[in-house]
Amino acid sequence: MENSTQKAVILLKTDKDDQWSAYLQQVMPELEVRFWPDVGEATQINYALLWNPPEELFEKLTHLQVIFSIGAGIDGILKVKSRPAHIPLVRLSDKELTNGMVQYVIYAVLRIHRNMVNYDRLQNNREWGFYQQIAANDCRVGIMGLGQLGMACVQALKALGYNIIGFSRTKKNVDGVQCYDQSQLQEFLKRTEILVCLLPLTTQTKHILNKSTFNQLPRGASIINVGRGGHLNENDLLEALDNEHINHAVLDVFEIEPLPQDHAFWLHPKITLTPHIASQTVPASAVSHIVKGIKRHQSGQPLEFLYDPELGY
Amino acid sequence: MENSTQKAVILLKTDKDDQWSAYLQQVMPELEVRFWPDVGEATQINYALLWNPPEELFEKLTHLQVIFSIGAGIDGILKVKSRPAHIPLVRLSDKELTNGMVQYVIYAVLRIHRNMVNYDRLQNNREWGFYQQIAANDCRVGIMGLGQLGMACVQALKALGYNIIGFSRTKKNVDGVQCYDQSQLQEFLKRTEILVCLLPLTTQTKHILNKSTFNQLPRGASIINVGRGGHLNENDLLEALDNEHINHAVLDVFEIEPLPQDHAFWLHPKITLTPHIASQTVPASAVSHIVKGIKRHQSGQPLEFLYDPELGY
Repeated sequence: MENSTQKAVILLKTDKDDQWSAYLQQVMPELEVRFWPDVGEATQINYALLWNPPEELFEKLTHLQVIFSIGAGIDGILKVKSRPAHIPLVRLSDKELTNGMVQYVIYAVLRIHRNMVNYDRLQNNREWGFYQQIAANDCRVGIMGLGQLGMACVQALKALGYNIIGFSRTKKNVDGVQCYDQSQLQEFLKRTEILVCLLPLTTQTKHILNKSTFNQLPRGASIINVGRGGHLNENDLLEALDNEHINHAVLDVFEIEPLPQDHAFWLHPKITLTPHIASQTVPASAVSHIVKGIKRHQSGQPLEFLYDPELGY
Repeated sequence: MENSTQKAVILLKTDKDDQWSAYLQQVMPELEVRFWPDVGEATQINYALLWNPPEELFEKLTHLQVIFSIGAGIDGILKVKSRPAHIPLVRLSDKELTNGMVQYVIYAVLRIHRNMVNYDRLQNNREWGFYQQIAANDCRVGIMGLGQLGMACVQALKALGYNIIGFSRTKKNVDGVQCYDQSQLQEFLKRTEILVCLLPLTTQTKHILNKSTFNQLPRGASIINVGRGGHLNENDLLEALDNEHINHAVLDVFEIEPLPQDHAFWLHPKITLTPHIASQTVPASAVSHIVKGIKRHQSGQPLEFLYDPELGY
């Protein structure tokens, strides 16, 4: 396919360019690394590793052959109108990215299940109190999105004894887990006590966490959003928390990031909020995925983890 | 051994007598249940299910044959001087008790490892910030106490990718876990970043978490105490937190419970405090362990989970 004698030049536009550069050159010394916006002779650049690229980037890089995302989600790249649709776009698959997400989701589920928000409040009030402990098996966690991250969370929560159900666009078969497809959202929600959103953000999933979704959950259910801010209608959530239909929300992602200083989420007693840190891409670990992709492309092998325009992720 | 035609009468002195009574009579209708201090004809009582019994209890129950503890720890029974040493004392073994402890320890480890205390602070300050994510494999958790609860925590934390080491009175062999015995405490501590105390409380382990222990941990280590309050020298911990040798402590148990209103732990910014709720005995689940013990005793089979006076637990 591509000629393998062609010089490999990658452009970085990430939030950790120095780290990426160091690890890339360590693993693949023959790779030339450049940093946005210093593209040099732009036609020499055939790879790009990107996080929230600006419109001008694709206008300049006329000879790109593969676009790599530094995160599992690619909505930040898809929304750039100048992106040439014919150039393959590779999503990140990385063990540490998955591990980080599993850790966060387990923490969030335990925080809700074991009443840790209430125990924090007791501590603040110097109060010795007690909330009934419910067996994990009597606590039903519904995972929306059964991709690589969602499935890893399903397995880890199952190992802790939780009662897990799953929801995805097309129906998945998962041992010991009742799964629902997009036509069965209502049945899935009816049975979910702790809802975890790990969907990709697409036109179909935008604002999927809205008033109607909340109303189909049983009263007292809780929400964990580790997908994207765009999945959640923020005003609908505030209303559902205030009318006590939803008990608590653990949120890592927001419509506008950084979350504006005056946003109602910050000091809401029913919201545990973190600044988009559920899972961070660790260049030391993820670099092998990028280099493997470049080498597959150079040797004419098919690329893995490709964006599928029909699915939108 | 004992005559099996003898009427089985159990005395309850627990914190959940009503629940225990209901479940015991459901599973073993022929068992007569009495409630402290209404012992009736005391010589008829051959079993007792206890939590923090008073001295008078053993003085009255002259015909006891087996003492059951409603918790994994039995220090609350051992400290009662009137307890007849020749009567077998059975520790609790229960799946839900173990599950509860595993949940709490995982939550506490994640809270420390993933900087959740700092993220709570950022939320309170309406601050968008970032702490470097460290791979679980680069985070070394040292578990003190490798009994039923300790081993369950070892396995669950290993499954999440943590680097686990173990400490116990006698050396244990655990696949993939470097273990240390009581003569190797210093080596164990030197390598421990998050210390989890799940030891039984004995004369040997009293105040095992003290100034000297803290000083042997690497600077910045954290403490999780889910054993007993008596394991921890509380003043030494305050000093180690204040001089920044210890980074954070998650504490569920205290020398005096309920923790006194004016105790320095309550509002300490480096302490996450819960009111002895890490693992609660759930009568619905644990009742089968008690009934099994009674039936083994009635049929002359050897009792399991017995207190060993030589070991002190």
